[in-house]
Amino acid sequence: MAGVGRKIGVIVSDNPDDVLAKAKANLVLHATSSPLSEVEAQIINCVEAGCNVISIAEVRLAYPWVHNSESGQRIDEAAKKNGVTVLFTGINPGFMMDLVPIMFTGVCASVRKITLWRLLDISPYGSGVLNNLGVGLSVSEFEKGLADGSIGWILPLTCPQIDMIGDAIGWKLDETKRIVKPLTSNKPKKTSYGVEIGAGKVCGVKWSYFGIKGGEALITFDWIHVLHPKEEGLEPEDRCFIEGESDIDLVVKKLDSGVGTYAHAVNAIPQVMQARPGLFTVRELPVAAALP
Amino acid sequence: MAGVGRKIGVIVSDNPDDVLAKAKANLVLHATSSPLSEVEAQIINCVEAGCNVISIAEVRLAYPWVHNSESGQRIDEAAKKNGVTVLFTGINPGFMMDLVPIMFTGVCASVRKITLWRLLDISPYGSGVLNNLGVGLSVSEFEKGLADGSIGWILPLTCPQIDMIGDAIGWKLDETKRIVKPLTSNKPKKTSYGVEIGAGKVCGVKWSYFGIKGGEALITFDWIHVLHPKEEGLEPEDRCFIEGESDIDLVVKKLDSGVGTYAHAVNAIPQVMQARPGLFTVRELPVAAALP
Repeated sequence: MAGVGRKIGVIVSDNPDDVLAKAKANLVLHATSSPLSEVEAQIINCVEAGCNVISIAEVRLAYPWVHNSESGQRIDEAAKKNGVTVLFTGINPGFMMDLVPIMFTGVCASVRKITLWRLLDISPYGSGVLNNLGVGLSVSEFEKGLADGSIGWILPLTCPQIDMIGDAIGWKLDETKRIVKPLTSNKPKKTSYGVEIGAGKVCGVKWSYFGIKGGEALITFDWIHVLHPKEEGLEPEDRCFIEGESDIDLVVKKLDSGVGTYAHAVNAIPQVMQARPGLFTVRELPVAAALP
Repeated sequence: MAGVGRKIGVIVSDNPDDVLAKAKANLVLHATSSPLSEVEAQIINCVEAGCNVISIAEVRLAYPWVHNSESGQRIDEAAKKNGVTVLFTGINPGFMMDLVPIMFTGVCASVRKITLWRLLDISPYGSGVLNNLGVGLSVSEFEKGLADGSIGWILPLTCPQIDMIGDAIGWKLDETKRIVKPLTSNKPKKTSYGVEIGAGKVCGVKWSYFGIKGGEALITFDWIHVLHPKEEGLEPEDRCFIEGESDIDLVVKKLDSGVGTYAHAVNAIPQVMQARPGLFTVRELPVAAALP
């Protein structure tokens, strides 16, 4: 392996068919690219090699029974045919903004409204992500870039978390909506990777998703990415507020998205190995715990 | 039904055999008394009548594979023989201090230590519970009552939550310990049910459980019941702190234990109806969501 300086028995290869044939693996942890067509083909390739699959790759496949149901169906059929299990998971989707709120509705006698709030510090990200989020642009440049598609294509158009919650608690939502708003900085900022922005420029993005029924937003998910949020008086945290009988007000500090994503995928291995063949969502399997 | 003034088709009876024979129920929601022998016999009676059972009744059966494993085995065998599923659940045990921390270890790459904190306002409780907790006694009367068993018998000696967490994340704990401490009031207090206590008297109890390995408390659960905690500068809340990679700091405000217990039992019905026959713990089934 590169940099280790000795053979450690780990195959590194860009030829998946070769690796799948040699490794005779029980399970593939899949974390590659993002285009749906590519990811679907990769997953089905692993499934046809007889491997169970846990993937963190594709927001759009996290709840395939609403979005991209054809991809979901093809993966489900291939998994059943090959006697293996497929799960898409991570921290979001796959945990904090779908599984956690669903689980906490379970201690409510009734639910009227759910509000989710995720505030992330994006200062550790590289310039690729920051440029795509429009960091450093003026507000008018941001709006123009969003409209012509030159920025913002990593901002998901749909929000599978909202559909998963709605289905879990039996709400038939009429529609989901998205509103994207740039956030501007009070002062000049600099990231650890050297991206500099001036005061008044875009320093983050708030993208809000609404699960609407009868004209009312019953589920709201505010997803806020900010460069050095503490300098803007904002606290990085994940929050889930459920209005119902009784209310739930849950706040999580310190949750690390990077660690959380790979840990949740790895820790789900026993659950996936014990599940029936097919494509599963996190709410259909027992919860994953840290492996020893 | 008493007080309704008309027939609503609900049978109220103190003869369970009679009800079980007439109702031909698929599932029994069991919430009766507490002595283990009585509860076990009641559950097995329901199971032998062909009913799935969800029970909130018995802390000591919440994790029967460590505590009371003989009772657990008898219930498990009877359930399998009769093709039904049994689950003990509620808010605690069954959710906040076992399922929630287990689930949040699932987004950690490693776990070093888990600290749980549950601070409850006991002012809505009746005099039976408050007397048993020693509320209103002096500290020396409390210590004497605890030693001779005249108070404190509702304070669990064991903590199935700790064992369930330990097993879930693969820690082989050496032992669990309990320490009970009375809390005294700064000023006179009165409950809604008319219980009055003087300043300096016992106004609550902190019972702490420790899951110990190699001489170190790896899991600590502080369970604090206080009369009007805000008057003592204490905030009612549930907290779960996980030290690991990465840390998790989770706080839940407003969680209502009464509503949470019955809601979690009712909301688990679909999970129990779909499970294999046998005795299950909450961590073996998919999470329960609010029913529509």
